[in-house]
Amino acid sequence: MAVHRFKPEVYWNTIGSHAPALHVNSGDTVETTTVDARGWDEQGEQAAARGNPMTGPIYVNGAEPGDTLAVRFDSIVPNRSWAWASDVLAPNVVDPEYLAKLPAANICRWNVNAAEGYAELDQAEGSYWAGRRLPLRPFLGCFGVAPARGQAISTSTSGEHGGNMDYRGFVAGVTAYFPVFAEGALLHLGDGHAVQGDGEIAGTGLEISMNVTFTVYVLKGRKSGWPRGETADHIFTVGNAKPLDYALQYATTEMLIRLTGEYGLSAQDASQLLGQTVEYDVANIYNPAYSLVCKIHKRWLPDAART
Amino acid sequence: MAVHRFKPEVYWNTIGSHAPALHVNSGDTVETTTVDARGWDEQGEQAAARGNPMTGPIYVNGAEPGDTLAVRFDSIVPNRSWAWASDVLAPNVVDPEYLAKLPAANICRWNVNAAEGYAELDQAEGSYWAGRRLPLRPFLGCFGVAPARGQAISTSTSGEHGGNMDYRGFVAGVTAYFPVFAEGALLHLGDGHAVQGDGEIAGTGLEISMNVTFTVYVLKGRKSGWPRGETADHIFTVGNAKPLDYALQYATTEMLIRLTGEYGLSAQDASQLLGQTVEYDVANIYNPAYSLVCKIHKRWLPDAART
Amino acid sequence: MAVHRFKPEVYWNTIGSHAPALHVNSGDTVETTTVDARGWDEQGEQAAARGNPMTGPIYVNGAEPGDTLAVRFDSIVPNRSWAWASDVLAPNVVDPEYLAKLPAANICRWNVNAAEGYAELDQAEGSYWAGRRLPLRPFLGCFGVAPARGQAISTSTSGEHGGNMDYRGFVAGVTAYFPVFAEGALLHLGDGHAVQGDGEIAGTGLEISMNVTFTVYVLKGRKSGWPRGETADHIFTVGNAKPLDYALQYATTEMLIRLTGEYGLSAQDASQLLGQTVEYDVANIYNPAYSLVCKIHKRWLPDAART
Amino acid sequence: MAVHRFKPEVYWNTIGSHAPALHVNSGDTVETTTVDARGWDEQGEQAAARGNPMTGPIYVNGAEPGDTLAVRFDSIVPNRSWAWASDVLAPNVVDPEYLAKLPAANICRWNVNAAEGYAELDQAEGSYWAGRRLPLRPFLGCFGVAPARGQAISTSTSGEHGGNMDYRGFVAGVTAYFPVFAEGALLHLGDGHAVQGDGEIAGTGLEISMNVTFTVYVLKGRKSGWPRGETADHIFTVGNAKPLDYALQYATTEMLIRLTGEYGLSAQDASQLLGQTVEYDVANIYNPAYSLVCKIHKRWLPDAART
Repeated sequence: MAVHRFKPEVYWNTIGSHAPALHVNSGDTVETTTVDARGWDEQGEQAAARGNPMTGPIYVNGAEPGDTLAVRFDSIVPNRSWAWASDVLAPNVVDPEYLAKLPAANICRWNVNAAEGYAELDQAEGSYWAGRRLPLRPFLGCFGVAPARGQAISTSTSGEHGGNMDYRGFVAGVTAYFPVFAEGALLHLGDGHAVQGDGEIAGTGLEISMNVTFTVYVLKGRKSGWPRGETADHIFTVGNAKPLDYALQYATTEMLIRLTGEYGLSAQDASQLLGQTVEYDVANIYNPAYSLVCKIHKRWLPDAART
Repeated sequence: MAVHRFKPEVYWNTIGSHAPALHVNSGDTVETTTVDARGWDEQGEQAAARGNPMTGPIYVNGAEPGDTLAVRFDSIVPNRSWAWASDVLAPNVVDPEYLAKLPAANICRWNVNAAEGYAELDQAEGSYWAGRRLPLRPFLGCFGVAPARGQAISTSTSGEHGGNMDYRGFVAGVTAYFPVFAEGALLHLGDGHAVQGDGEIAGTGLEISMNVTFTVYVLKGRKSGWPRGETADHIFTVGNAKPLDYALQYATTEMLIRLTGEYGLSAQDASQLLGQTVEYDVANIYNPAYSLVCKIHKRWLPDAART
Repeated sequence: MAVHRFKPEVYWNTIGSHAPALHVNSGDTVETTTVDARGWDEQGEQAAARGNPMTGPIYVNGAEPGDTLAVRFDSIVPNRSWAWASDVLAPNVVDPEYLAKLPAANICRWNVNAAEGYAELDQAEGSYWAGRRLPLRPFLGCFGVAPARGQAISTSTSGEHGGNMDYRGFVAGVTAYFPVFAEGALLHLGDGHAVQGDGEIAGTGLEISMNVTFTVYVLKGRKSGWPRGETADHIFTVGNAKPLDYALQYATTEMLIRLTGEYGLSAQDASQLLGQTVEYDVANIYNPAYSLVCKIHKRWLPDAART
Repeated sequence: MAVHRFKPEVYWNTIGSHAPALHVNSGDTVETTTVDARGWDEQGEQAAARGNPMTGPIYVNGAEPGDTLAVRFDSIVPNRSWAWASDVLAPNVVDPEYLAKLPAANICRWNVNAAEGYAELDQAEGSYWAGRRLPLRPFLGCFGVAPARGQAISTSTSGEHGGNMDYRGFVAGVTAYFPVFAEGALLHLGDGHAVQGDGEIAGTGLEISMNVTFTVYVLKGRKSGWPRGETADHIFTVGNAKPLDYALQYATTEMLIRLTGEYGLSAQDASQLLGQTVEYDVANIYNPAYSLVCKIHKRWLPDAART
């Protein structure tokens, strides 16, 4: 259970079977940094090429195809005092008939106070945003493991291997789970957001570089099909596909498999549980694959106290 | 501000410009009942034809095309001690490749204790559900106003006029808003659910007859394009379309119009507000049109106290 | 087998259980006219309200729910010398990222020579269209029967009852089939197009009023679920839904039902036939429901000569 | 203009920046072979791993990012006497409500007579297929160039770089065009089908190994965004995305760009041309990305003779 302080020197704009930057054991903790979606680091310098450059990959000893990799985020903290964001909604989330009324998008700057946990729009004088503070809720927009078949997949998109899910639920304290497709799992991470709404519908969150600490575990022989997660209150699954309907199908089916397989419910009992208690989050409706999250409250897990 | 106790004698399986069953004024309150989705009433008798039979329509004096009708739900309470529900997920929310593994669906019975606010699966002995209680959260699955053009639209589906949105957020205390398309607005309501998860993914909630009390207001000259709502904490808009992507476009555009029109934000300020704080609910992904809800917390409304 | 010369006096902007304008027998032929999508008639006068006003409904004696109504188009001929059309693609068929580059749409005029079978853009001097002639292929964009449940559905959209399918394959010589949902079937028709490409992607064809002659047949006890059709070379089915994926699912399933039910193929034989020979037409990707056509060449019907 | 006889020794299950297997010049012709989707070669031996193994990549000297690579198929001929195919429709093309009625899929064998141009189902005695012959129309289901960013993308899917489009229009005589993303373009090809219907809706065509001859040309400085093509009669563009709606948006926008850029039409003239004459082909609705083809008849190109 070592702690590795890892300073990235190379960044990747695809998630794939690249040369490992660090080898760790199951149970180890890694303290590292990520640059923002445009490759700007904590000093605001261009440290990597645009397009969600990734820190890593991190090779987790013993992880093999058919296992699951757990990644618990211990802390995710912005490491600079400003973020950037788009100021107009992405065209694909607006009624096509209305689009002609939208202005062109620009990038604007937000001043970020990580210590006190808020952001303020720069040059907001006279606008709605003057005097308003956005509470921070930092998370990583893009992270995942090397995909199947030796693929190297752009960090603009997502799939069974994770990737650019831009789910605002992946905050510190949450554990993410990925199917392992390659020896060592090869974890990549980056694309920090200081805060973001559901769906990343402006095409960005508050884009920022981060200090990240996380701990990895190899779950030997635990099969999974799509990214999964666990918070203090919920278990969840993630489907990545277009349109949202298909992402929802994948996430829901993965949860059904989890409830019937891992937790032993019958298909009927699990269906009723899902039907009457499921909660969905629209994680992302901007990227080439959209992301939809299916959540069940832990009070419903079989070993939870009955109410 | 009269209170009308209204006992329905006729039910409708379409929402349209039918003969009014009751005339009321803006500000009046109506106490009435609804039968369940199969037409069974509080005694369990077949009082109406299957397929979301509607109580109403209620003609609101003074409501004209171009106005908005507000409907505040004062109370929604199950008026019998049992509900029915499907026990297998709807085929359209499951990965098509997995569907062959699902059993055939049956209707099961839930025992409902409205006074104490819970339901228990009937004949649950030996199953996951033995000893488990679902907390109730009663709402109406289908309600709305006569649509444009003299249409009469099946209560299986939804549109700009509302209809079968099956949104579990429409509980007592919430106000719903509809564009008025016909003289008197012609409010229809029914399809009570004692509880339901996001999306109505089993194809049913806990289907039950209800006692409903609500108050209507005509907002003269207030234009709207899609159903809207307000809770203690949020304002929201509803888009009804397939796939979810298009429902999300309609809901998001209606919220953008509301923020820029009603609340005076610039398109950029509203976009940033939506981009960094929006919350989406998957209301329904079972009906012929899906329903997606776009929510903004009231703390962000211009006249809210700044934080 | 009477021939009815029918001059419409009332038009409908919904398809529903309206008062019949004409009663005919199975096998009868009707000669009538339709106004264009904006209600302009052969003199260019506003004869009906905008929005695909329908001629009819025509009550076919003996047609009952569970039957199929066949409508053979004997002739469809423009009855005036000009049509109108939109001159820019509809926003929903263009990549949202590209939309900002499109100009605003205007209505333009085409001069139509029905006798010689072509149209020329008015005021085309100096443009690409100068000296170019569009060959005519006249068809009806919107027609169908009264839908189920007593619904009255806007002529802007489509469903199991037909409606605004805007399929350029519905030319003279083709037979369309509809499930009968109401006594007398109640056929409505209108929205003539002198010519149109796949998908109606500019949001219009060359919109024009028509002289239409057709013959109706009641197929007693022949069940169907969606509109069907037959040309000299093909049998086809139509699915109406959004997105195209769902329209394709409905059309393909209807064809599978037809091949296995009506023609007696096994599911496997029909699947192989569909898999290796099916042809799809994108009928419409502009209306609230899209339309997709599934075609099988008649050479593959069981009683066709083997090759 | 050399002719290269190339016998592949290595196959790839991704399309990416792999080591070139052959270097050629613009204008050169290549004669080679492809194995089938399961890696079986002309002797029926397992020559490569399952999942559309690719012959190549072929490095075309002088091809650079920003150019377009043209690939003219001179001949595509099955090089063995049998093919395999699935015998039940893919679940995703069938109405989910109907799916439970479909039997499980099996692989069946077709006997292929390439010289006479037909296939017959093996063991068809007593079935619909007894005595019936499918005319061959051989094409390649999967081919394309190395994608952007150094990605390596599974041959199960498709994108701007081509890939698994399964478009039955890519027969001998057709020229395909790809945007060049990597030095040398790096052409991969495989997944031959002896015949297939629109959409590959059984999940396979008649899967077979091929002898393929093609000629490549580098179009220096010719930019393109998506795969394009040219037949004797049409020019076309291909969009690859889910759902079909988005694939259609990409294909249509690429054609609009082509008509306005390459051919000099105004947006309005091009819109009218597309609106009134466009033809769409549903190339594929089975793979992770669907493929939709947008076609314009060459008679409408500006330098064609006017009619």
